Amino acid sequence: MADTAAVKAALRTQHIETPSWAYGNSGTRFKVFAQEGVPRDAFEKVDDAATVHRFTGVAPSVALHIPWDRVDDYGALAKHADEVGIALGAINPNVFQEDDYRLGSVCNPDEAIRRKALDHLLECVDIMDVTGSKDLSLWFADGTNYPGQDSIRGRQERLSEALHRVYERLGDNQRMLVEYKLFEPAFYTMDVPDWGTSYAHCVDLGPKAKVLVDTGHHAPGTNIEFIVAFLLHRDRLGGFHFNSRFYADDDLMVGAADPYQLFRIMVEIVLGGGLDASAGVAFMLDQCHNIEPKIPALIRSVLNVQEATAKALLVDQDALRTAQQNGDVLEANAALTDAFATDVRPLLAEVREDLGIDPDPMGAYRRSGHFDKIRVERAGGAAAGWGA
Amino acid sequence: MADTAAVKAALRTQHIETPSWAYGNSGTRFKVFAQEGVPRDAFEKVDDAATVHRFTGVAPSVALHIPWDRVDDYGALAKHADEVGIALGAINPNVFQEDDYRLGSVCNPDEAIRRKALDHLLECVDIMDVTGSKDLSLWFADGTNYPGQDSIRGRQERLSEALHRVYERLGDNQRMLVEYKLFEPAFYTMDVPDWGTSYAHCVDLGPKAKVLVDTGHHAPGTNIEFIVAFLLHRDRLGGFHFNSRFYADDDLMVGAADPYQLFRIMVEIVLGGGLDASAGVAFMLDQCHNIEPKIPALIRSVLNVQEATAKALLVDQDALRTAQQNGDVLEANAALTDAFATDVRPLLAEVREDLGIDPDPMGAYRRSGHFDKIRVERAGGAAAGWGA
Amino acid sequence: MADTAAVKAALRTQHIETPSWAYGNSGTRFKVFAQEGVPRDAFEKVDDAATVHRFTGVAPSVALHIPWDRVDDYGALAKHADEVGIALGAINPNVFQEDDYRLGSVCNPDEAIRRKALDHLLECVDIMDVTGSKDLSLWFADGTNYPGQDSIRGRQERLSEALHRVYERLGDNQRMLVEYKLFEPAFYTMDVPDWGTSYAHCVDLGPKAKVLVDTGHHAPGTNIEFIVAFLLHRDRLGGFHFNSRFYADDDLMVGAADPYQLFRIMVEIVLGGGLDASAGVAFMLDQCHNIEPKIPALIRSVLNVQEATAKALLVDQDALRTAQQNGDVLEANAALTDAFATDVRPLLAEVREDLGIDPDPMGAYRRSGHFDKIRVERAGGAAAGWGA
Amino acid sequence: MADTAAVKAALRTQHIETPSWAYGNSGTRFKVFAQEGVPRDAFEKVDDAATVHRFTGVAPSVALHIPWDRVDDYGALAKHADEVGIALGAINPNVFQEDDYRLGSVCNPDEAIRRKALDHLLECVDIMDVTGSKDLSLWFADGTNYPGQDSIRGRQERLSEALHRVYERLGDNQRMLVEYKLFEPAFYTMDVPDWGTSYAHCVDLGPKAKVLVDTGHHAPGTNIEFIVAFLLHRDRLGGFHFNSRFYADDDLMVGAADPYQLFRIMVEIVLGGGLDASAGVAFMLDQCHNIEPKIPALIRSVLNVQEATAKALLVDQDALRTAQQNGDVLEANAALTDAFATDVRPLLAEVREDLGIDPDPMGAYRRSGHFDKIRVERAGGAAAGWGA
Repeated sequence: MADTAAVKAALRTQHIETPSWAYGNSGTRFKVFAQEGVPRDAFEKVDDAATVHRFTGVAPSVALHIPWDRVDDYGALAKHADEVGIALGAINPNVFQEDDYRLGSVCNPDEAIRRKALDHLLECVDIMDVTGSKDLSLWFADGTNYPGQDSIRGRQERLSEALHRVYERLGDNQRMLVEYKLFEPAFYTMDVPDWGTSYAHCVDLGPKAKVLVDTGHHAPGTNIEFIVAFLLHRDRLGGFHFNSRFYADDDLMVGAADPYQLFRIMVEIVLGGGLDASAGVAFMLDQCHNIEPKIPALIRSVLNVQEATAKALLVDQDALRTAQQNGDVLEANAALTDAFATDVRPLLAEVREDLGIDPDPMGAYRRSGHFDKIRVERAGGAAAGWGA
Repeated sequence: MADTAAVKAALRTQHIETPSWAYGNSGTRFKVFAQEGVPRDAFEKVDDAATVHRFTGVAPSVALHIPWDRVDDYGALAKHADEVGIALGAINPNVFQEDDYRLGSVCNPDEAIRRKALDHLLECVDIMDVTGSKDLSLWFADGTNYPGQDSIRGRQERLSEALHRVYERLGDNQRMLVEYKLFEPAFYTMDVPDWGTSYAHCVDLGPKAKVLVDTGHHAPGTNIEFIVAFLLHRDRLGGFHFNSRFYADDDLMVGAADPYQLFRIMVEIVLGGGLDASAGVAFMLDQCHNIEPKIPALIRSVLNVQEATAKALLVDQDALRTAQQNGDVLEANAALTDAFATDVRPLLAEVREDLGIDPDPMGAYRRSGHFDKIRVERAGGAAAGWGA
Repeated sequence: MADTAAVKAALRTQHIETPSWAYGNSGTRFKVFAQEGVPRDAFEKVDDAATVHRFTGVAPSVALHIPWDRVDDYGALAKHADEVGIALGAINPNVFQEDDYRLGSVCNPDEAIRRKALDHLLECVDIMDVTGSKDLSLWFADGTNYPGQDSIRGRQERLSEALHRVYERLGDNQRMLVEYKLFEPAFYTMDVPDWGTSYAHCVDLGPKAKVLVDTGHHAPGTNIEFIVAFLLHRDRLGGFHFNSRFYADDDLMVGAADPYQLFRIMVEIVLGGGLDASAGVAFMLDQCHNIEPKIPALIRSVLNVQEATAKALLVDQDALRTAQQNGDVLEANAALTDAFATDVRPLLAEVREDLGIDPDPMGAYRRSGHFDKIRVERAGGAAAGWGA
Repeated sequence: MADTAAVKAALRTQHIETPSWAYGNSGTRFKVFAQEGVPRDAFEKVDDAATVHRFTGVAPSVALHIPWDRVDDYGALAKHADEVGIALGAINPNVFQEDDYRLGSVCNPDEAIRRKALDHLLECVDIMDVTGSKDLSLWFADGTNYPGQDSIRGRQERLSEALHRVYERLGDNQRMLVEYKLFEPAFYTMDVPDWGTSYAHCVDLGPKAKVLVDTGHHAPGTNIEFIVAFLLHRDRLGGFHFNSRFYADDDLMVGAADPYQLFRIMVEIVLGGGLDASAGVAFMLDQCHNIEPKIPALIRSVLNVQEATAKALLVDQDALRTAQQNGDVLEANAALTDAFATDVRPLLAEVREDLGIDPDPMGAYRRSGHFDKIRVERAGGAAAGWGA
């Protein structure tokens, strides 16, 4: 049986990073619905992330997206974050939102555009130096829409060159996380379509390059927990962009579509030691709250990761191992399903009381009147968004 | 053996409708790349459609999207179309691009919003009366993102009510085409997710309601030609929104991803008599040219449909039937693959010469200098787009 | 809040039918692994189904598969079932396991083979007359492997003719359930590939024809609960073949792959009144226990359906409706997730005590020594299987 | 423009290996339909492979499957092959068809079973020494059906150990091809589910370990030509198991489902130099002719690979490169589509005349009377099959 005290200790120290861009407006190519109370700049996004941390106790950092969060003084932004109780987390460069990038960024056939993209990546490492961020989170929208449009091999070589240049620029305590995605926005090839491509490049680069798993970026049927276990086993799992999906990269709240899958992922994390800080696995959200209010959606998402983690920690590992060794399929499976069937909400309420926060974060936020406050305060100005 | 003269006759009278919105800028949620020479209003879109018809000879109408193509005087627009040699085709209402539609249009839980959406649909029938359009092309972005968000049954009832109200408003020579889509922009349920849902509503409504098949709106693995054959057999195939996809609703040029699938679809059309005008099957494109120039992309798309049609017409139907009746799997399959392996470009060059146009539409357009002309003429003003 | 007494009452009267063929050996095309204690004839399969009912209290009938369960005297088999405490349930004809059916059964291009298949279907109605079975459960393996192999329309006509002939033969209290499947064993077209095809034929036939939903028979991404809600709303949901899958028709234990999906399906059943006997929804399992012991796997499967049903019954329907009407996405979703997060095992233990059975069916079966008993008793003879 | 003489020279020396098991009976888990004229032992399978070579001119070797092709004297089998004009090709071990392998072979939790599986793999290298085969083609059916059933990491370690043991046993001119597969027969995890897993193990092992791409083993939407280009670029593409699929591992005739995909794969092969013998890419078929006659189906399949190769060789590489460098999406795409639209059957007829065979292999086989001959000769005895 799992040791409840140890489980609670692990849950108290969990660290889930929220993304600045999830606090702004987002949507589909068909429509971005405007919401009220949306932040208008990076400082207000940091405020919102701090709010989520205040109500959950386990979201003490916020990831930035450059240039969406570009400010004149990143030191001032870091100081602001510190004042509101959180830290600045991963830096996410954006090399997909200028007309120059129509045919790609670091894989573009045009060398001048590749250079421009690389410069932006290097600029982001400069920003990391100021913010103290440890992780450069790289996602490339690069790819092609039509067969023959560009050389698959040529693009791999260009990608490799850019990655090496950025890798060489990293400081001792800085890492590069290489994300992969099956499709969108490119619809024929993506230059990093799957974990294998990301892994191969990371192995080329060295120990500071790790694979970033976005849970919405796989082909239908892909067993994500296998990938997680495989990468963690080989010390190449850099972290997650958590969200959930029924179809493609739907970017719904993590755990909303398939909570059992999220649990299985966290089981592999627990079994592989991935909750230990030394494992270096970053747990980050990456979601779009197109129709639901953003701060409550992020609170709920943090809770969903917490619940999955709690259940994973409750797996009776001795029983699991024994059943596996005996080839007892049903008992081994039951070790997981029993943990999953457990209602962990009371346990998490206790964890929150230990942390000195309200045991019911959703209710507490609703009762706090915070949303009415920001709705008024942020009535003017331009709401933050993707600027697509 | 297929009769070449009859094949050519059929190809000369083929009618492929292009969509006004494909001439404007489009993109993904990540970025809409601006292109040069893009039309700035409905009149210029009609001009571009006329250009495509001038070079292909088989694209004599253009579908409109309201409000993207809203004009003060639809009669004037129809007259302009006539002057440049084409007709106005299907009217496509848009009930997904206002903030009111965050939770749906005709299926919205709020009755006032449903009423607003219905009014727009009825307004579009008014427009049809003026433009002489025969088809109201209905696609609903309605759906939900999260389990429980709304009542599946309740939404079906609201949908049914709206469809009946519109159906009653149709004139004698007007039809309603009901499109379906698996997902996007809704990511949990779509209110018309598949052909079965569309078909059931059409049967409820009556003979003027038909199913519209968008080739990019299916789950992976769906056999589209089966659906086409089934609907045509039951006189419920209203038409197509042609495009192609490797993944989801990628909206690539039709035939670009899987030309053999397009051929198989056209084979079912030919075998089921769907090329005859009396069958009432509308062949329309619905594509997004995010990175490629729009007019040449539409010319190429029209050619792709033409080539698939030509190959389908070349199938030796006697040999096919004989092999099928004999249970000769390989011979029956060969009747299709032999036609598909045929290079129909020479045949189509002859068809074009019969029509009095250049046998090489892509080359002719390139040589015409048309693009340089519109690039200059349309340098100012706001390029048309989706306004998302 | 849901009324606990009513919830328990509903759970006590739940009726889940197990399939005779799941007690025999099964496998993939690569290998059927032999297990010990497997029944050798229909009588022993009935015994095993009775065992599952004895330990679960909610599995009082067993579906038969003809000819796998062919016996000389079906009256004797029904009497045996009654003696061991269960009833004979749906009759499942088999028109896919003779060399004659290489190109299909009722859709075969050869009329003599169609006639043979039809005769078998009619024979199965004769058997229903004797066994008192209410449901003829029709699944056709018919389809084609290669484009052109046979006429899609021709096969639909042959299918329709056979269905009509069987429909006319049904008695007053007999129904026909028409199952659909995306693929396998046919790999290009299936003649009933989706619910829409099945629904259209059922509407043609009349009120005694209903759609059968096998939870493993859909394209990736298909929203099964939408289909369930739609069919139930139109009184065309005949029942389920429950199982679960990660990839294709994996036939794993129901609820093993995605328990939240199973819950959502049961939510639609509860909301649509489908648990009432008057709704006529048959809850049947259809699984293959290739590597796990069969009787415990079926007990576990019955428990999984029970747990999903209990959670669905616990949904606070007032809160759900209110949130839906208010357009409160997160609250409406929470009405479902709160119920799903509940640990219903204690409640089900009480239900079992009410039924006079052990509150822990899996443990009780393990402790009973039943498996050791049948392992010995059934050591000789030929184990039942699919005979593929 | 491609040089026709060079294209024809390349086509004359193409080498496509057929699989012994495709000449025997095969089917689905539902039914193996018996065919006439099926070989009854390895010698007759070799005869059939020689027949396919005789009619196509480009299929000079046959892959073996052990134990399905177990013979007392492999030297005698090799001699027989030589006498009928072909060579013995890759050796395919089978560690999935004994009851011991219920929970896996080299990944089984039971060490004794792992040892047994390893011994069989090593035995197959012994056979290679006798037959002169260069490639050990490894496909593991290993995996799990239920979450928790076994340790993902533990199984990776066991897999790695076995692969290392086999690798060490390989002779100087022997290679190990490591195949991957998404699912089937395991339905939760496969131990080598994707190319990334295979690649990582191959890199661990050394230069004699290469990835084997089976075209039917991917998740829906996977871009296979990307994988091919990537592996070839890194000198890790060992070869293909060609077949085609609409859904899962359907094992239809290669090119039957998506000839354009096959063409795109061959384009990457041509562009990456993979047709040169020095590249070490083995082109092998791996198909199941469940309903169609086997020898003609294999002839057709060889022709399909040939046609795709011919079209790939016809791509105007200069035009392609120029358009790619210019960022001309439509022209670059047209370089591929123009080649694909070409009817290469006349060119291939000339190649066959150069090879001294009938220009129409399908017709020539039909006219040869060969099938009637084997139908009579092989009337008695047990037809070869998978023995599942």
